[in-house]
Amino acid sequence: MNSTTHITTNEILALEKQYRASFINSLGGFKSVCLIGTKNNANQTNLAIFNSLVHIGANPPLIGFVVRPDSVDRHTLQNILETKYYTINHLNETIFKQAHQTAARYPQDVSEFEATSLTENYLDNFFAPYVLQSSIKLGVEFKEKIDFTINGTIFIIGEIKHIYYPNNCLQHDGFLDLEKAGTVTCSGLDSYHITQKLARLSYAKPNIIVTEI
Amino acid sequence: MNSTTHITTNEILALEKQYRASFINSLGGFKSVCLIGTKNNANQTNLAIFNSLVHIGANPPLIGFVVRPDSVDRHTLQNILETKYYTINHLNETIFKQAHQTAARYPQDVSEFEATSLTENYLDNFFAPYVLQSSIKLGVEFKEKIDFTINGTIFIIGEIKHIYYPNNCLQHDGFLDLEKAGTVTCSGLDSYHITQKLARLSYAKPNIIVTEI
Repeated sequence: MNSTTHITTNEILALEKQYRASFINSLGGFKSVCLIGTKNNANQTNLAIFNSLVHIGANPPLIGFVVRPDSVDRHTLQNILETKYYTINHLNETIFKQAHQTAARYPQDVSEFEATSLTENYLDNFFAPYVLQSSIKLGVEFKEKIDFTINGTIFIIGEIKHIYYPNNCLQHDGFLDLEKAGTVTCSGLDSYHITQKLARLSYAKPNIIVTEI
Repeated sequence: MNSTTHITTNEILALEKQYRASFINSLGGFKSVCLIGTKNNANQTNLAIFNSLVHIGANPPLIGFVVRPDSVDRHTLQNILETKYYTINHLNETIFKQAHQTAARYPQDVSEFEATSLTENYLDNFFAPYVLQSSIKLGVEFKEKIDFTINGTIFIIGEIKHIYYPNNCLQHDGFLDLEKAGTVTCSGLDSYHITQKLARLSYAKPNIIVTEI
């Protein structure tokens, strides 16, 4: 029979650094993972994987993500602050290994697009590059940078200006079927997963049992 | 052959409200969904589903989530601000329908635990109730409330003080196997999914091809 383990603050803080990073990164559940594409004013492109996307609002459409203070992804942050535009590109089974590879510490003058053989894709005069191989892509305008003083992380909020998605994945009520689009999720620092739908559930109301829709 | 649709800001803003909410909520990818358990100082418990968990840091172990300004989940926020403690409980296939049901607008004097037949579980003298049926549970202490003035949402950061997990899900390097634990992910406003692992990938370094670990 399987048993439950309980650990507390002092034990967590005493863990070896990499072990703790892997463990604590697992605790929030499956994550929204994406590639963020940017370009600086000298036309140097950058592509980086982030696993901290979060919905902020639908009207206006706002999306946020976390930037670690010590991260290689600071090139992404620099470019966003310099140019105001970036793209968010979903991962799929075909590109998740290349996407993971963008986390390597390349020098600033190396584009992760080239280094990982992902293809820059410029659409509708948007400044920042999309990922051609990604099936759901967002063009986003920077809105707000919030410093989380508690540990030096930074939260970036942007407004979604362009959405590209496969026609056959949009349902009649606005639900976009990410599973059909092949979007991948991740857990911890390095584990990637496809999904299998259990159900969509009806809008919850008191004293009415939710049904599958 | 499938084609790609492109829509832009003005079209997004012109969408019907519920349609837009469903659509925009789909765009960030698969989400970290959980049940947050709280109790006020009058011993009234509350349980609410959130799909916006995000990792903030490992040392100290910090986790954040978004509270919508117009949400029923404001009871959760009130209790956290009043008492400083809350629990984060993973969803699994057995309880995802009950978890979804907690989103119904129950009056404040109704506990969603009772209304949804989920069981309050008090562990190691922690103030807030865990969900007995959840296999991964976190006891969290409130640390910071950040107001996102751009649209009135609120971001709550807490420090993880207690972790409960199934023994056989922890790997030698600190990775917690959420798939083995049966943790569920969600997409959009109402779709729930189990996962199927593609691979864990090695730490990314320039000019070294990532391998499965």
